[in-house]
Formats: sequence, C-alpha cells, structure tokens
Amino acid sequence: MYALRVATRAVGRVAATGTLQPTRAAVGLVRLPLRGVVTSIPKARGRDQDLEISAKGQGGEVRMQAAAAGIADVTMKHDESMLKLSWSTGGTDTYPYVWLRDNCQCPLCFHSGSRSRVHLIEELDLNARPRSAKVLGGQAVEVQWSDGHVSRYEASWLLPRAFQSAENYIRKPSYKLTPHPWGSELMEDLPRASFPEMMSDDAALLKWSQQLEIFGFVMVSGAPAEPGQVRRLAERIAFIKKTHYGEDFTVIVKDDPSNVAYLSGPLQLHADLPYYQYKPGVQFIHCIKQYEGNGGDSQVTDGLHAANLLRENHPQKYRILTSTPVDWFDEGGRENHVFLCSTDSYGDVCRINFSQPQRDSFFDIPAEDVAAWYDAMKTFHRLLADPKNCLHFKMTPGTIMTFDNLRILHGRTAYLSGYSARHIEGCYVDWDEVRSRRHVLEKKLGVNSRRLVRREE
Amino acid sequence: MYALRVATRAVGRVAATGTLQPTRAAVGLVRLPLRGVVTSIPKARGRDQDLEISAKGQGGEVRMQAAAAGIADVTMKHDESMLKLSWSTGGTDTYPYVWLRDNCQCPLCFHSGSRSRVHLIEELDLNARPRSAKVLGGQAVEVQWSDGHVSRYEASWLLPRAFQSAENYIRKPSYKLTPHPWGSELMEDLPRASFPEMMSDDAALLKWSQQLEIFGFVMVSGAPAEPGQVRRLAERIAFIKKTHYGEDFTVIVKDDPSNVAYLSGPLQLHADLPYYQYKPGVQFIHCIKQYEGNGGDSQVTDGLHAANLLRENHPQKYRILTSTPVDWFDEGGRENHVFLCSTDSYGDVCRINFSQPQRDSFFDIPAEDVAAWYDAMKTFHRLLADPKNCLHFKMTPGTIMTFDNLRILHGRTAYLSGYSARHIEGCYVDWDEVRSRRHVLEKKLGVNSRRLVRREE
Repeated sequence: MYALRVATRAVGRVAATGTLQPTRAAVGLVRLPLRGVVTSIPKARGRDQDLEISAKGQGGEVRMQAAAAGIADVTMKHDESMLKLSWSTGGTDTYPYVWLRDNCQCPLCFHSGSRSRVHLIEELDLNARPRSAKVLGGQAVEVQWSDGHVSRYEASWLLPRAFQSAENYIRKPSYKLTPHPWGSELMEDLPRASFPEMMSDDAALLKWSQQLEIFGFVMVSGAPAEPGQVRRLAERIAFIKKTHYGEDFTVIVKDDPSNVAYLSGPLQLHADLPYYQYKPGVQFIHCIKQYEGNGGDSQVTDGLHAANLLRENHPQKYRILTSTPVDWFDEGGRENHVFLCSTDSYGDVCRINFSQPQRDSFFDIPAEDVAAWYDAMKTFHRLLADPKNCLHFKMTPGTIMTFDNLRILHGRTAYLSGYSARHIEGCYVDWDEVRSRRHVLEKKLGVNSRRLVRREE
Repeated sequence: MYALRVATRAVGRVAATGTLQPTRAAVGLVRLPLRGVVTSIPKARGRDQDLEISAKGQGGEVRMQAAAAGIADVTMKHDESMLKLSWSTGGTDTYPYVWLRDNCQCPLCFHSGSRSRVHLIEELDLNARPRSAKVLGGQAVEVQWSDGHVSRYEASWLLPRAFQSAENYIRKPSYKLTPHPWGSELMEDLPRASFPEMMSDDAALLKWSQQLEIFGFVMVSGAPAEPGQVRRLAERIAFIKKTHYGEDFTVIVKDDPSNVAYLSGPLQLHADLPYYQYKPGVQFIHCIKQYEGNGGDSQVTDGLHAANLLRENHPQKYRILTSTPVDWFDEGGRENHVFLCSTDSYGDVCRINFSQPQRDSFFDIPAEDVAAWYDAMKTFHRLLADPKNCLHFKMTPGTIMTFDNLRILHGRTAYLSGYSARHIEGCYVDWDEVRSRRHVLEKKLGVNSRRLVRREE
C-alpha cells in the first residue's frame, strides 16, 4: 500500500487510495488532467524541479517528467492582464498582473525573514500593469510596473506557483494528507510504532504522524507500564490539549461492589467530547494495567469508512446525517446544531460526532423528521459496529492507542467475569500541533512536501 | 439596546438585533410563528414554565404567556408513530415514539448522575410502540411499551422538548448568543468591564462573557500595569490556549535604531494565527507600557459587520470571498483551502480570516478568477478600514483589549515620531472555555438560559 505525493504544487499526486490523480504537469513532457487506477508501483526520484514519475494507469502507461525549467520568453498580455511565460522545456503559463504585484518579493513589499507580505493593502493597485518585462539569464523575470516599481521573480519560485486554467482546474492536494479509510482488514497489518523509537528518532516520529493522518489509528507499543507516558509522548510531539477535565486523565476501575453495575456494562462506540467546538483532535490511551477477567476488549472503528459506505449504499440516510443538527450535552458545556457527520466546503467528511451518552434529549428538528433520523443513525451504527469494519482487541500493558478523535470511534466491551483493577491514562493533542510537527520534521529530514509512505517499510 | 432570550426551548426569543422572532409558544395563550420589529421594550418575568412576555411588534401588540402546564390527556397515534399530549392550558404536542423510547429516563436507560443515555444503540427498536399510555396526576405520562418496558416522562421535562411541525419550523436559538454587529458608533458606548470586578465578582465576569459573545469586543480597564495579568484573567475564566508560540506572548518595542524600519510601519488589520485549523478564539492584549510618540494607535473592526455590508451591497463579491479557498502560511504550519469569510451550514459567517502578512503566495484557483478575488478582497478591506466601521484609540497602561479573534480584526497605526519602549502582553482562550464558563456562571447565578443583557446596566 502506497501513498505517494510529488511536489505538492508542481505536478500531481498518487493518492493512498490507489487512485492516480495527477493534477497537471506544470511543465514537462506531459500535461494531462488524467485519472486512473494505479496498476503498478509508482516510483519517484529527483528533486522538486527535476522529477520523473512512472505509473501504469487504466489508460495505459503514463510517464510524467518535470525537468529543471528555465524561462525562454516573457510576453505582456494587457488584454487579459496577465504575464505569459514560455518555459525552456516547452509549455507556457500565465500569471495575473495583480497577483504578481501583490507578491513582489522585494524588501519593501516582502519581509523575507518572517516570509511575510508587508506592503499596504490599500496601496495595492488592482489595475497594476507592467511597463516592461524581460527575462534575466533564463532564470528570472524582471517586471517594471507603470508606477516605476521593479519586481523580480525567480523561475524556481514561479514554477510551483503556476496557475491552472478554469477549464482544466483540479483542486490541488491539501496540506493535510489524504486519508485512507479502512475496515477490519487493517488488523492484519495494523499501523504500528515503537514508543522508544518515537521518543528518540525523528524519522520514527515522522512516520507515526504520517500514518496517523492517513489511517487515523496507530498502535504504539513498548511504553513503560507506568503513569506519565502519554504526557511524555504529547510533549515529544508538541503539547497536551487541555480541556475542562484537565490535561491528562486517569480511568481506574476498582474492585468495588458498589461499582458492579457500571463495571458490567460496555462503553459504546463513541468519540470524546462531541460537545466541543474545538473537539480534541488526537487521542492517546495508555494501558498501564489491564482488566484480567473476560471482556474489557477495545473496539476501534473508522467513522470515515462507515460514512463512505453509508454514502454509497444509503445516500438518503447519508444526506440526513450530514444535514440534521444534533445537540450534544455535558455539564461543562453544550454544543448544539452539530451534525453526526460534518462535511467541509468540498463535501468531504471532516468530523464524526457520535456518542450515545452525550447526545442531548433536546432535538430541534420537526417531529415528522425524527423517525427517519433514527433509522439513518441506526444504519450508520450498524456499519460502525459491523465486524467487517470494527477492530477488536485487548490492550496489553505498555501499549498506547493513538487515534484521530474527529474520525475514529472507540469503545470497550462489557466485563464478563471476574474483577480486577484496570488502569488507563489518556490525553489529547490537537491536529494543528501534530500537523505542524510533521511539517517541521519533513523539512528537517528533507522530505519536503513529497511523501512516500510505504506500509511495509 | 437589549438582548432578551426566554427559556431557550420553550417559547421564543427577541434577538439582540431588535428583531422579534418567537419560535413558537409550546403551550399557552399564543402559538404564533411571528416575526416583527420590536418597537417597545420587551419585559420578561416569571420562571421557565410560568412566563409572560410583552412586546410591541410591527403587527401590533403581542402578548405571549406560557403558564405552568399540566397534562390533560394522552393519545397513542399509531398511524403516525407519535404520542399526542393535550395540555391543561390548551394546545397539543406530539412526540415521536422512537424518540420517547430513546430518551426513557429510567435508571436502566439513563444514568441521571452523569445525565447520560446508557441503553445500547443496537437494542433501540425503531418500531417501538406503546401498549398503553396514561396520565399520572396531571403532571406526568406513563408509557408501557410493547416489550413490557415502562417509561415515565414528567410534564416539566416534556414541555421544553416539544417538537415543532415541519410546516412552522423555525430553527431554535443556538447555545451561542446572537452576535450584534457594529460600526464605529460602538465607540460612543464601548462595552467595558473592570479588571478588579471581573477577578472578584462572578456577575461581572458573566456580564463580560455575554458582552464579548454579543459584541466580540470588551475593553477591560483597571489592571495592574505589570506583566502576568493576562494569565491571571485567563485562569480566572478557565485556562490559556497554548499555541506553538507558547502560552502568553510579549511584544516589547525597543529604542533600537536597527529596528527603525520595523518601528515606522503600521501593523495592518489582521486576525492572529489564520493558518490554524483551531484558530485561537478569544484574544487578550494588555498594555503595560505605551509608546509615547505620535502614532501607535490601536485599530479594531468588526469583520462580521463588514461581511454583512459586503453581502448586502456587493453580493457577488461576498460570494467570491466565502467560496474561494485561500492558503495561509507560517513557518510552524500552514492551513490551506480556508476562505476569507467562512460560513457555517446555515450560511452564517463563522470565521473571518484576514492577514496581509500571512496570506500565502501560493493561490490555488484558476488564473481567470484571480483579478475578481483581489477586487472583492480590496472592497472587503475598504469596509473593514472605513472610519465609519473601524474603532481608533490609543490604549493606556492597565487596559486589556479582549476580543473574538474569529470575528474581530485588530491593527496598530505607524509610529510617526519619537521613540520609546512599548510593552504589550497577550494570550488566547478558546471559545469552548469562555462559553462553558458563561454556561456554568449562568447556572450558578440562576440566570439559566434566559438572558437579559442591557448595555446601560
């Protein structure tokens, strides 16, 4: 299983799902908005501006190459208010005048130390147009604007920022990694990481963060079976997300008869803190001491996978769950009007809210719509809990489940017999911190925005 | 200026905007889906179930009363799968069977200590129907289900949870307070709070949190002009939101010639950390020592107000800014595909991203669409910066600006002459914590979900 990304802005991507989706070759031999199923292993080599990709797609073999490009020619297209560049390797790109003026890289307009634009918005001329434009040594363009200001743009800066045309527009990959939805087959090849390696080796930490973002779940093993480890891990990544419950939390089940009713029941599949606007992003659950009787197994299921199945097989139920506001309750706060499945502006599922205990009894929808919502919710739950989709295992002391609390639901089966102490410690880290850490590690380790995650490695 | 909310679920609301929008009277003398402009001061008195509201609307005087209601009769409507209740004060309501079964309040189904639903989702029968239903002493309904399970629902629990019909459905008020957009007229009657009062008096803290949620800005005065005060304030509310910059931050401008270029420039209107997925919600800026030369004034403007003006007067530009993905950049992380104005699922503006320095030079839209986006952005900025909309003042030592970083933009004018030290300290608290604090304080002070905020008080 592969997830290959080539220079984010330059060429295209082969998504982890096995679907080949080159956006376009900004420059090079091939300039194709092409989709196909990858039938052979893609290979990538070279640097951002000198990259070759080979992959076999449905439509035959595809070869894309983005050679190190120089600028052959520059033309002012005043009728379109765009600068047209011809590349030495063939092909052209057009850059809007106003964008070029806004992104002038001179010290008056741009502070390179903080990589910040500093010119005043009110002084940006929407009708800015060059008086002249010329190629400098094949590697840069110099523009003199009608007000006399001079801007210089390097070929290596312009190339990855090439615009697409409306006709062939395909949204470029997000800063987020493409998630790979999974069913219980994941158990055969569970994403794993070693606690000692994560704590000492940046490459291991980076791989963990990539796997977590792609699969939403990584089982970490080899942690000391004693308190304080989730905090150590969180602080190795960045820092803990605090909630009104505090920073880290402890669940100790005692051999106490007054707790039998509680002990015997299962903890149903749920996400933590569904009533938070900023619902915790990543959750760690560390098993310090395990319950020794029968039962008490962990359950983990991919809400994204279940949502995809619902969308494919029950589109009307999917529509109901992604458009019906639900209230969520907790003594410390309440978030209402949140969907069971939230989608972002592109229609991608971005947050699964599911919690039987914390769904409010207030339900602000017309009475006539209630039965259909329950029907859709039950179908969604069947998909979540289906043994074909839901992982089932018993944690051992020293393991830490790490998972995406916006996507993955977790639970625990009932305690069936016998009683013993069980000691769990957990905490949260938000995605802003985990993604930022990945970004920084990629830069440090020279991975940049091209990423190859091979599960078997 | 008034913001009146009556029992959230029971009757209706008079929004802070002066628009009367009763959703419906669940029971009582009036049952109107009515809209109108409030022309006289609304009054509210009584408890949740014994409430009278008088207000003059466009359509004449309106009087609503929800008297303490008993249950006169209950009928099973098997054809609709709903239970129909007749109230002693007149009127009826219908409750879907499956919702009633799901929200059974018995100890097997509901754990009252944690206010959590505990029955198993997979055991919820979508076709649950009562074998019998009877009124108990006029104040409760007892339902015996076909499987023999018995549920009891109190009138006082059922009444506020009454469903609306699809025909007359109006979305009920959110857990969030309705924002009141403002222009520079706010300066004449600036929302203010006293630091010592907030630190010692729960009512003052509650009022601050309500004003902050409604206006997005409250000027706090009377803080000691020394470091550590923003942390004290944050911890009085809940706790600081940590970012990759740390917990609190300090901006000290020194009288250092090597900084002259930086010193002389303005800090343009912006929101902090636009590249965060969980962008900090509330920001505190404490002036410990002010710049003594000319200039260095603070600017504060309401992004929601500007967005409303844009929507009204330039609908096409509003559409562009709420649907064009923009990338945001910082060394520590990058969030792409975020709009300048983000709207929620109901079309309400929920996040303004605006930052000239941190808008990325990568811009993933078709070249043909670039000029129109810049035009829309410039128009939006003109509205933001317009003296009719933008507050302009110079902070004095001991004042703390507190504002909604998802809605309000802030800036600082250039230093025009002279140099002196300036010492600012700031930090963030997220809305989850601020709203939760308000919720808890309202409960503690007996304000519940009915809220009357009178600016003059």
